Amino acid sequence: MTEHQLLRDLVERNGSKIVLVVADGLGGLPLEPAGRTELETAVTPNLDALARRGTCGLSVPVLPGITPGSGPGHLGLFGYDPLEFKIGRGALEATGIGFELGPHDVAARGNFCTLDGAGLISDRRAGRIPSEESFRVVERLQAVRIDGIETFVKPVKEHRFVVVFRGPGLDGGVADTDPQATGVAPLDPAPQSPAARRTAEVAQEFVRQARGIIADEPKANGMVLRGFAAKPALPSYADLYGLRAAAIAVYPMYKGLARLAGMTLVGHAQSLDEQIDELARCWADYDFFFLHFKYTDSTGEDGAFAEKVKRIEDLDRALPRIEKLGPDVLIVTGDHSTPSLLKSHSWHPVPTVLAAATCRPDGLEKFSERQCRGGGFGIFPAKHLMLLAMAHAQRLGKYGA
Amino acid sequence: MTEHQLLRDLVERNGSKIVLVVADGLGGLPLEPAGRTELETAVTPNLDALARRGTCGLSVPVLPGITPGSGPGHLGLFGYDPLEFKIGRGALEATGIGFELGPHDVAARGNFCTLDGAGLISDRRAGRIPSEESFRVVERLQAVRIDGIETFVKPVKEHRFVVVFRGPGLDGGVADTDPQATGVAPLDPAPQSPAARRTAEVAQEFVRQARGIIADEPKANGMVLRGFAAKPALPSYADLYGLRAAAIAVYPMYKGLARLAGMTLVGHAQSLDEQIDELARCWADYDFFFLHFKYTDSTGEDGAFAEKVKRIEDLDRALPRIEKLGPDVLIVTGDHSTPSLLKSHSWHPVPTVLAAATCRPDGLEKFSERQCRGGGFGIFPAKHLMLLAMAHAQRLGKYGA
Repeated sequence: MTEHQLLRDLVERNGSKIVLVVADGLGGLPLEPAGRTELETAVTPNLDALARRGTCGLSVPVLPGITPGSGPGHLGLFGYDPLEFKIGRGALEATGIGFELGPHDVAARGNFCTLDGAGLISDRRAGRIPSEESFRVVERLQAVRIDGIETFVKPVKEHRFVVVFRGPGLDGGVADTDPQATGVAPLDPAPQSPAARRTAEVAQEFVRQARGIIADEPKANGMVLRGFAAKPALPSYADLYGLRAAAIAVYPMYKGLARLAGMTLVGHAQSLDEQIDELARCWADYDFFFLHFKYTDSTGEDGAFAEKVKRIEDLDRALPRIEKLGPDVLIVTGDHSTPSLLKSHSWHPVPTVLAAATCRPDGLEKFSERQCRGGGFGIFPAKHLMLLAMAHAQRLGKYGA
Repeated sequence: MTEHQLLRDLVERNGSKIVLVVADGLGGLPLEPAGRTELETAVTPNLDALARRGTCGLSVPVLPGITPGSGPGHLGLFGYDPLEFKIGRGALEATGIGFELGPHDVAARGNFCTLDGAGLISDRRAGRIPSEESFRVVERLQAVRIDGIETFVKPVKEHRFVVVFRGPGLDGGVADTDPQATGVAPLDPAPQSPAARRTAEVAQEFVRQARGIIADEPKANGMVLRGFAAKPALPSYADLYGLRAAAIAVYPMYKGLARLAGMTLVGHAQSLDEQIDELARCWADYDFFFLHFKYTDSTGEDGAFAEKVKRIEDLDRALPRIEKLGPDVLIVTGDHSTPSLLKSHSWHPVPTVLAAATCRPDGLEKFSERQCRGGGFGIFPAKHLMLLAMAHAQRLGKYGA
């Protein structure tokens, strides 16, 4: 019996409220071997109080040693095994720019490139043209028309864009057209299985028309397509947990991930304060609230230790307003670690606290990597966090008599 | 997606060096309930320093409560799930005496037995004849000739030997011929599936000729064959991790296990000092180094607590020479525990330390069973150790965007 089958059998409904605060990239490392991490350096009276009344642990996003991107990191927290449920690159990219994928869509990432007179790639990134220039070229591509297919072309950043094909019988199994080299022509879109033949034809027609339209561009006169993917088939929060779930996020990527899990996007908050305003406003309408805080990750990615410390303190200061709403289960965790030392996501497990009336005290004094290691949840797979949330919300019945 | 598929997707190459020191049977037990284990008794300033700068944990070789042999113990450390990848008894026995199995080989363990005038087994171990006598009988068996098959017969110890059949179309699915009783005849080699029919015939012909050759032996005039097995299909270290891997071991069993994983056997060291000489010599030629230290296991098997303590201290004294080479990742662990108290392998989890620049400090003061329990890796499956090694060597890319 899989965990999801078990869940479906055991889920009960009640009036409880669960709040999941994801501080992106929360976990860190000290700058010097014997030093303190960002979280250990930050002054966090409210997180510490939460740790004292809750249960803590270190969550492993995917597997020991595996560094997740935002997609797998969030899927795990949402209770989907990130090795079982995968979001194809194209689908994630579309999600990341806020494009709402439908069930008949196939998305791919596009890169503009420069082709020479013989049609061979001379620059794989079209000289990294600025976003404004790319936006203009993308605008020209709106003229493509393919019989029976709706086509969406959306700019991302610099030379990157997303193309989405919508129509019956499409399939993500099309190979990348990027030859990963210069001096050669882009590849034709090739089906990786018979089911994807139609999609490969559609992609080929798109490229044919597009090439004609942008032939006069000085730099972005060609393109390669990568990561063809349909919308991933995730069971929804309503289906899996019986929860009416709301997502309160600022950035498109996290809104998109929440939408893939069937959450409702709430509000248009642009800051943590506004997110909490939104939370208060929709408190009566939902059972579960995913609140995404980006800046612990972005400061980590920048290698800005002191800035990350400040952002953690910002989050700490905001906590009492969330607690005042009286959630039955309040979780603070991260989708992965982003140590300033590494300036990137990492595999290190993530400090996690869950506070509820049913918590067994584990004697922690502070919310930190070091203390969480000795917490009541131990070192645990992130995909189990939602089971714990559901249990502490008393939303899971007994398994077996 | 399995862990191995994931690895293949994420592996990157760089110039980093990983050293895996396996102190065989490292974990122990106190002789008296409140006492100290062998490792806790040993004076180990270098291991303790390693624990202070690294991350520690207790590794579970197979599953809680499962005592592994050397085969599964090492497979786990090498990153192969020991429940998925099995080394058949015959293949392990051949490996253990240093026989290099080929892809067309089937190996079986043989026991000489004594047959009475009616051909029934009167002694299942041929009176445990001394090794010298057994070697002589094995020598006589070199005369066996089977059409289209190359046959290797190698002595092991006392009444035990190994037979390897080499030829096209062989298969390990042949039942044991040991009836596990006296007063009955050895069984005929029976195929367990159609694919093994030819192998069973070959084995039968081997036994027929052998019986004729050794009919005049006073004790070893018969034989039973057990554990027919082909070479296990392990993906190699090069394939799985993109690592050029060297094994520096003294004993044939561990050389054999390393070879099954595609490591290159380096040198002919006969002591730990010579092993480290070898390590230094081949440092530039490999990315990964497996260094096997036997004596923590053999002293444990002998129930020699104080001797095991000394052997741990020997290992500790050797560490600085390894550290001086500047490995990016240095791991010290064991393939299982061998408590002197039990005089045998055991299921107890194994103290493990990994030191690298990317370690999150876990505040341990000493390398011991007790302290490792509170280490940053917690209690973890041994098969995940290589993921951690690869991550800390910065040889794994990000999973998902």
